[in-house]
Amino acid sequence: MARPITLFTGQWADLPLQELAKKTSEWGFDGLELACWGDHFEVDKALESDTYIKEKQDLMAKYGLKYWAISTHLVGQCVCDNIDERHKGILPERLWGDGDPEGVRQRCAEEVANTARAAAAFGVNIVNGFTGSSVWHQLYSFPPNDFSVIEAGYKDFAERWNPIMDVFDEVGVKFGLEVHPTEIAYDFVTTEKALAAIGRREAFGINFDPSHFAHQFLDSAAYIEEFSDRIYHVHIKDSIKRVHDGRRSILGSHLNFGDGRRGWDFVSPGHGDVDFEEMFRALNRIGYTGPLSIEWEDSGMDRDWGGPDALNFVRNTDFAPSSVSFDAAFASDD
Amino acid sequence: MARPITLFTGQWADLPLQELAKKTSEWGFDGLELACWGDHFEVDKALESDTYIKEKQDLMAKYGLKYWAISTHLVGQCVCDNIDERHKGILPERLWGDGDPEGVRQRCAEEVANTARAAAAFGVNIVNGFTGSSVWHQLYSFPPNDFSVIEAGYKDFAERWNPIMDVFDEVGVKFGLEVHPTEIAYDFVTTEKALAAIGRREAFGINFDPSHFAHQFLDSAAYIEEFSDRIYHVHIKDSIKRVHDGRRSILGSHLNFGDGRRGWDFVSPGHGDVDFEEMFRALNRIGYTGPLSIEWEDSGMDRDWGGPDALNFVRNTDFAPSSVSFDAAFASDD
Amino acid sequence: MARPITLFTGQWADLPLQELAKKTSEWGFDGLELACWGDHFEVDKALESDTYIKEKQDLMAKYGLKYWAISTHLVGQCVCDNIDERHKGILPERLWGDGDPEGVRQRCAEEVANTARAAAAFGVNIVNGFTGSSVWHQLYSFPPNDFSVIEAGYKDFAERWNPIMDVFDEVGVKFGLEVHPTEIAYDFVTTEKALAAIGRREAFGINFDPSHFAHQFLDSAAYIEEFSDRIYHVHIKDSIKRVHDGRRSILGSHLNFGDGRRGWDFVSPGHGDVDFEEMFRALNRIGYTGPLSIEWEDSGMDRDWGGPDALNFVRNTDFAPSSVSFDAAFASDD
Amino acid sequence: MARPITLFTGQWADLPLQELAKKTSEWGFDGLELACWGDHFEVDKALESDTYIKEKQDLMAKYGLKYWAISTHLVGQCVCDNIDERHKGILPERLWGDGDPEGVRQRCAEEVANTARAAAAFGVNIVNGFTGSSVWHQLYSFPPNDFSVIEAGYKDFAERWNPIMDVFDEVGVKFGLEVHPTEIAYDFVTTEKALAAIGRREAFGINFDPSHFAHQFLDSAAYIEEFSDRIYHVHIKDSIKRVHDGRRSILGSHLNFGDGRRGWDFVSPGHGDVDFEEMFRALNRIGYTGPLSIEWEDSGMDRDWGGPDALNFVRNTDFAPSSVSFDAAFASDD
Amino acid sequence: MARPITLFTGQWADLPLQELAKKTSEWGFDGLELACWGDHFEVDKALESDTYIKEKQDLMAKYGLKYWAISTHLVGQCVCDNIDERHKGILPERLWGDGDPEGVRQRCAEEVANTARAAAAFGVNIVNGFTGSSVWHQLYSFPPNDFSVIEAGYKDFAERWNPIMDVFDEVGVKFGLEVHPTEIAYDFVTTEKALAAIGRREAFGINFDPSHFAHQFLDSAAYIEEFSDRIYHVHIKDSIKRVHDGRRSILGSHLNFGDGRRGWDFVSPGHGDVDFEEMFRALNRIGYTGPLSIEWEDSGMDRDWGGPDALNFVRNTDFAPSSVSFDAAFASDD
Amino acid sequence: MARPITLFTGQWADLPLQELAKKTSEWGFDGLELACWGDHFEVDKALESDTYIKEKQDLMAKYGLKYWAISTHLVGQCVCDNIDERHKGILPERLWGDGDPEGVRQRCAEEVANTARAAAAFGVNIVNGFTGSSVWHQLYSFPPNDFSVIEAGYKDFAERWNPIMDVFDEVGVKFGLEVHPTEIAYDFVTTEKALAAIGRREAFGINFDPSHFAHQFLDSAAYIEEFSDRIYHVHIKDSIKRVHDGRRSILGSHLNFGDGRRGWDFVSPGHGDVDFEEMFRALNRIGYTGPLSIEWEDSGMDRDWGGPDALNFVRNTDFAPSSVSFDAAFASDD
Repeated sequence: MARPITLFTGQWADLPLQELAKKTSEWGFDGLELACWGDHFEVDKALESDTYIKEKQDLMAKYGLKYWAISTHLVGQCVCDNIDERHKGILPERLWGDGDPEGVRQRCAEEVANTARAAAAFGVNIVNGFTGSSVWHQLYSFPPNDFSVIEAGYKDFAERWNPIMDVFDEVGVKFGLEVHPTEIAYDFVTTEKALAAIGRREAFGINFDPSHFAHQFLDSAAYIEEFSDRIYHVHIKDSIKRVHDGRRSILGSHLNFGDGRRGWDFVSPGHGDVDFEEMFRALNRIGYTGPLSIEWEDSGMDRDWGGPDALNFVRNTDFAPSSVSFDAAFASDD
Repeated sequence: MARPITLFTGQWADLPLQELAKKTSEWGFDGLELACWGDHFEVDKALESDTYIKEKQDLMAKYGLKYWAISTHLVGQCVCDNIDERHKGILPERLWGDGDPEGVRQRCAEEVANTARAAAAFGVNIVNGFTGSSVWHQLYSFPPNDFSVIEAGYKDFAERWNPIMDVFDEVGVKFGLEVHPTEIAYDFVTTEKALAAIGRREAFGINFDPSHFAHQFLDSAAYIEEFSDRIYHVHIKDSIKRVHDGRRSILGSHLNFGDGRRGWDFVSPGHGDVDFEEMFRALNRIGYTGPLSIEWEDSGMDRDWGGPDALNFVRNTDFAPSSVSFDAAFASDD
Repeated sequence: MARPITLFTGQWADLPLQELAKKTSEWGFDGLELACWGDHFEVDKALESDTYIKEKQDLMAKYGLKYWAISTHLVGQCVCDNIDERHKGILPERLWGDGDPEGVRQRCAEEVANTARAAAAFGVNIVNGFTGSSVWHQLYSFPPNDFSVIEAGYKDFAERWNPIMDVFDEVGVKFGLEVHPTEIAYDFVTTEKALAAIGRREAFGINFDPSHFAHQFLDSAAYIEEFSDRIYHVHIKDSIKRVHDGRRSILGSHLNFGDGRRGWDFVSPGHGDVDFEEMFRALNRIGYTGPLSIEWEDSGMDRDWGGPDALNFVRNTDFAPSSVSFDAAFASDD
Repeated sequence: MARPITLFTGQWADLPLQELAKKTSEWGFDGLELACWGDHFEVDKALESDTYIKEKQDLMAKYGLKYWAISTHLVGQCVCDNIDERHKGILPERLWGDGDPEGVRQRCAEEVANTARAAAAFGVNIVNGFTGSSVWHQLYSFPPNDFSVIEAGYKDFAERWNPIMDVFDEVGVKFGLEVHPTEIAYDFVTTEKALAAIGRREAFGINFDPSHFAHQFLDSAAYIEEFSDRIYHVHIKDSIKRVHDGRRSILGSHLNFGDGRRGWDFVSPGHGDVDFEEMFRALNRIGYTGPLSIEWEDSGMDRDWGGPDALNFVRNTDFAPSSVSFDAAFASDD
Repeated sequence: MARPITLFTGQWADLPLQELAKKTSEWGFDGLELACWGDHFEVDKALESDTYIKEKQDLMAKYGLKYWAISTHLVGQCVCDNIDERHKGILPERLWGDGDPEGVRQRCAEEVANTARAAAAFGVNIVNGFTGSSVWHQLYSFPPNDFSVIEAGYKDFAERWNPIMDVFDEVGVKFGLEVHPTEIAYDFVTTEKALAAIGRREAFGINFDPSHFAHQFLDSAAYIEEFSDRIYHVHIKDSIKRVHDGRRSILGSHLNFGDGRRGWDFVSPGHGDVDFEEMFRALNRIGYTGPLSIEWEDSGMDRDWGGPDALNFVRNTDFAPSSVSFDAAFASDD
Repeated sequence: MARPITLFTGQWADLPLQELAKKTSEWGFDGLELACWGDHFEVDKALESDTYIKEKQDLMAKYGLKYWAISTHLVGQCVCDNIDERHKGILPERLWGDGDPEGVRQRCAEEVANTARAAAAFGVNIVNGFTGSSVWHQLYSFPPNDFSVIEAGYKDFAERWNPIMDVFDEVGVKFGLEVHPTEIAYDFVTTEKALAAIGRREAFGINFDPSHFAHQFLDSAAYIEEFSDRIYHVHIKDSIKRVHDGRRSILGSHLNFGDGRRGWDFVSPGHGDVDFEEMFRALNRIGYTGPLSIEWEDSGMDRDWGGPDALNFVRNTDFAPSSVSFDAAFASDD
């Protein structure tokens, strides 16, 4: 049998979980990867309430939905970032507080640690999310970078995340960084660098999402084989490059997603440049048997059309690896 | 006759101008585009000294070198930027001062205005340079941008540069922004936006450099035709994309130029992805007759090998447009 | 909901409408775009008979088929063309008459005007068709064109079509030119020119058909955005280029469609080079909500296999645009 | 109606035919192309036993499966090859005997002739298979080939296969060589050469399999049209090239199929580089109405997932050719 | 030694031959291919005057220029064409006369025959030119072609050119049709058809010009090998496709050459899409040792810059074929 | 300064060395890489004669030619190969002897060891050559390979070459295997495997030749960086793929080099698919300062045209790496 298919609920957090669970169950999903925002999975309530987790578990069971991971992208982002007004928009008030950058970062670090505790209580051993980065904005080296500052950025990442990973280790949960521009790791080189910074400790791995690779011209299958021992979870999301006419920049032109003048955009799985066939073959080769979690995002498509379309696409494309050798069939039988 | 070829001296500012002038004269350049750093063209001295400008002019004349423009990339960068330690590295002490960001920005704005005054005194009517940008770092919209902040960035640009342009108008000099990532304009969309912000006033135009377009997958010839009335000066520089193996990100991996793991890099003209043939045809179509100024930068090549190689490449590639109609030759002569 | 799907009946005019309506209804089409040839929609009878239109309407209703447009490609073609024997083959005797070119052109112009009158009576406000062109044959400028003759061709088009458009205006119907080689407009440049010639009057718009763009190497999505206010109707048809082996000319070699030695050919939708995904996204962006009308033509495929295949392809590919903003889902809920 | 779809049983010979017949019948295949190894079709028993053939026919009938061909790839391979230990692995003991190369070759030649006799008795008129080649190993001419030796290899082929073809002629059966690297013919040039060597006698034709063409960069549709009178049978199999990263050789690196470091590999139909659309159009053009026989081989996919996936792919892709002319529909009806 | 390089004088006919001869001699050309228009080579004077030919020969000798062919493109065009006002522009008055189409065609046919006579007297045995075509304008089959009319067009060609070829045979001169859109042959298919129509008589061959092939996506080297026995003369000219942005039609948009909005254009040799390396290798393989005649045409380049650039390009690119076998060098010498 | 350029004399062994030295000296080569066949460098004489080496040295000095390596491709090939008649053609009689395969292999092994001794005496510390391979012929695994046989082939290689390498170590000479199809290593995978088999001993390295990589779709620059510590010598040779028309196999069709129907061929440097720019940048990165040795082979070009053309190409393309940092030039000078 092929892998289970879940929906990552992050882009549907405007819907109450109950409503979303009903909908996705009817569509035929095998489970959900709950986002830690909206009412989908609230870390503070999970740790404080005696009944919260049981209620979530019952809700999932009611709709026949399973779960393998929860996700903390928004809070994780604030652990290493240079904090500005944009972060206020993605945090609850209790974490933003007075908005003092270092205070925000520390409260968010504590929250990510708590997320692992809540995950363990909920019954999953993967928390996916972002890390943020103190040096992302120095992407294009002009004015010329002092590259020791870049090095310091990776050190800062390790110093902030090692204590968090200690808590993950305590509760038996792993972190899956969604490798992504704006994070401490977003490609081959920076993944290598981030893993080295944190000593390749086992708790820190990758939530692989190919949509962030296609527009960087990166080969998802090659990445999976290169970092095979750190692929802890997989997102199914797609992106498309639109640079063929020479008028749209691959950098995005400071335009919002969905604007036709951008040189790349996110699209529903199977509608973009990701080579899912080769990616699934690579996942088969490394023996990944976890969920394929659809992170559905396409500014040009109705999401109620797109959700089932994406599910159908993955069901028809993901296949189980071979268990027999062909040569056997050629052998003479005398 | 084809266009004159100059060398932009910015990447050779470690050499005294006298030495560089001798060298480039021997190589056969037609002139120099002096950088306003090193000892090549010092704005403060030019405006304060009675003899400075005459001495520079004499030096140029001695080596048979002409000039059409001077350049203030480093100071210009600081007019709109969010100032950090990197800016200290590219500014003289008198402009950096105590490093208070707004103070730096204002001193640099005044210096760019003075550069126009010095240019006029020197005898050129083009000053090339950068503008900086207060919103560049919000390139990838995560955390999600508040796009009104982007709009405010363009307004800030206009407010800071309009007074500078007033001085340019007074002294009859034009500014050529080198459209470039990290600047207020770096592609079609943002050029349109920046020109609109500043009211398309005539003083503010473009120093076109194709090396910043090739790695964005932008068509240099199309850009030249689109903004034909604002192409005030042209740099000849090249860049190459190295993303074919799926392991190198087009975003550059926070690596320094010259590192083989980058997905793109600057290279000597003719050694990269710029289609100079189509670019020169476009320049012919819009009637550009100014200099082609080689901005030589290639971290993998000896510059004394590269300088003459670049000059030779441009001499052999730039051609004059047609002055006759072919149909005439077919006409019967009776 | 996505857009309705109709079948253009032009290539099935050998079948009585009754038979075709039954067949397409069973296949699941939403409606038909009736061709004004065969017995599908006869303009003369529609205007002369008291019952003809009602009978057609009843027939459509009987099979649950709707209609948004009718089409007059063959007659329209003869309005501007240099008339030769080929036109005799596509006209009824009453319009061909003695075959005198100017007479044919004038009778056809009158017929197109009548078609608008009949359309209004039938209950549709779009008539699609061709215009013909007096200068198409000067496509390759040898012997060298006198380009004032080309200009005169556009003037001739405007003079012949403006009176027709007056009738369209009177009866509240719009004309959709199927932009197409052999017509007054067949690409970006000539569309711009034709619209200018006729003063961009609102009655004259475009029936967009991507199959005529793919083999010209034109970008259908870009065209739709460029002429967004004139996209009145859309055909779904595909074409394929077969020039990879260097032995087949993109010009077609004076061979009939379906000959394997041609450099391009029409194929069933989804079997060729048209990028329908990008085209549908562009239609979503401009807000087109009219029918997608399959003009089925593939000389290498059985049409009874192809019709349902095409319908299925469009149903699975056309999607509704997004109605929500993703950022909303990321917002903190405190 | 489109063509019947069979499964070639060669890669499933580890399963008893009864079990395979049941399975493929349930999947919906139209028939089987029985391999002459395993218990699928045993030539010696077919000729010796009074009941063997009847039992096979009954088994097929029981599951509603038809048959158009049987296949003798393994034995055929040994007719011309330089025999080594690998051949022992693919032959029954009665044919390998003492392993003396010439003895093996002669016994296998006799067996292929007997296969034609058995095929006739079974009720099919096509036997597919390999020929082997005495010169294949001289593929890369270093040390430099004496090309008269290559010529001698084609002569040897003709001398060994002409007597076999005589038997085929006697019993009214044709041979379909699966054109394939390691065989006497594997591309356009060598097919031409092999057909010439054997005098283009009608008994000797081609079992066309596009998977051996895609990784050689050969055009399957062009081949079908070039050798249209010798296309006796068709295999549906796919292969993929994986050379885009510049690290995997198109020659295969002496690695087994399924190894991710190979530059090409076999994959399930529709998952690779074969252009089946163009191939089916070519088959339509030459009037091929025989079976499309899926030879399923994909080292990275579970075959019980792949078999129905392949069947479904071919059912949806193979289409019947057109039987009407489009121009007819345009004709005026007066 | 490599092949001699001549300049075709057709596009320079506004210059007196004396001036052009001086110029091209100084540039280093080996010879000229004289056009039969302007004062370069006047057929009527050549046949009527006792001294005309001798004067031309002396002029050529004076500048050290050789000659292998003369060319009659303009007159040849009028032999088969449907005559319109454009033809008046390319003919002398004595051939245009009253402009009655059939009269023009017959006078031009007689003139081409006379051109052979004049060529023989001048001392060359090749006359290059066009044929025209009565069916070119039916290129895109809409209204649907009656393909018997196309057949009749080839018959018309043969009937008009066979008598001309009889004269060529009499005087020992061959005709080289410049295969070209607007002519009876412009690609593989139509060359085959035209040669068949005229019975493949030896007098009628090809002046091969790759610039007419590149924009049709045709392979020049393959064409040369396919029609190797009819390649009588070779033009060196280039063309470029500019369709990458999806906004420019490969059909040319009824725009004049040199307009940037065209999808293809003629350019100076080496500046376009022609693969001269492969073309020269093909010429080497078929043993062509005649001149490479530069037909210089580039609406965007000054011709006095382009002429020497083209000559230099061909000198550096055309190479002599090998005369030794490499294997010889490997042989042991004992 | 850039690297010295030598000519590998292997393909010119039909010329006496004296004649070749004179010719290449006049062309401007810096030196020669002498082949150990013809009279260029005879190992037996070098070791037996008291004067032979001195005479060669004097001859080289007379023509101002230097040397860095000698080459033993033909003899090296016979160390591991399965010996057949083709090997007789490339060996001197004293090594072929009675042609018994094992005897030939052992005599050739001894000869390669002697070649190191002669090289040391001559004054070079690199011997380039081939190794042969006992398993090359099992390239395409059909009949299915027993892959333990492949492993045994690498073991055989190590057993035969380790004793040879012992002699190389004794005399301070290194071996450069020209990685090449037909050898024990021909791509990334097999190089890795061969180096592992021989324990990555320092004496055994690589003579890198990109012409064997281009037709395998391998990235020469990536290979150089991957095996940077084993690049001992570099050949400059080119190859071209001709598979675009779908009719020519990448496998070569058992045709001799130079046949236009082959899917790839060797061509003069700069005339093929090798990306020399990227290759030279990679050589700069790894710090290779040895010779670039042109191995000239192009069956379609006169070698006396090609030799100087190749030299000129390399002189203009090979460049020295940068020795300064660009950032320095931007630094403020206060």
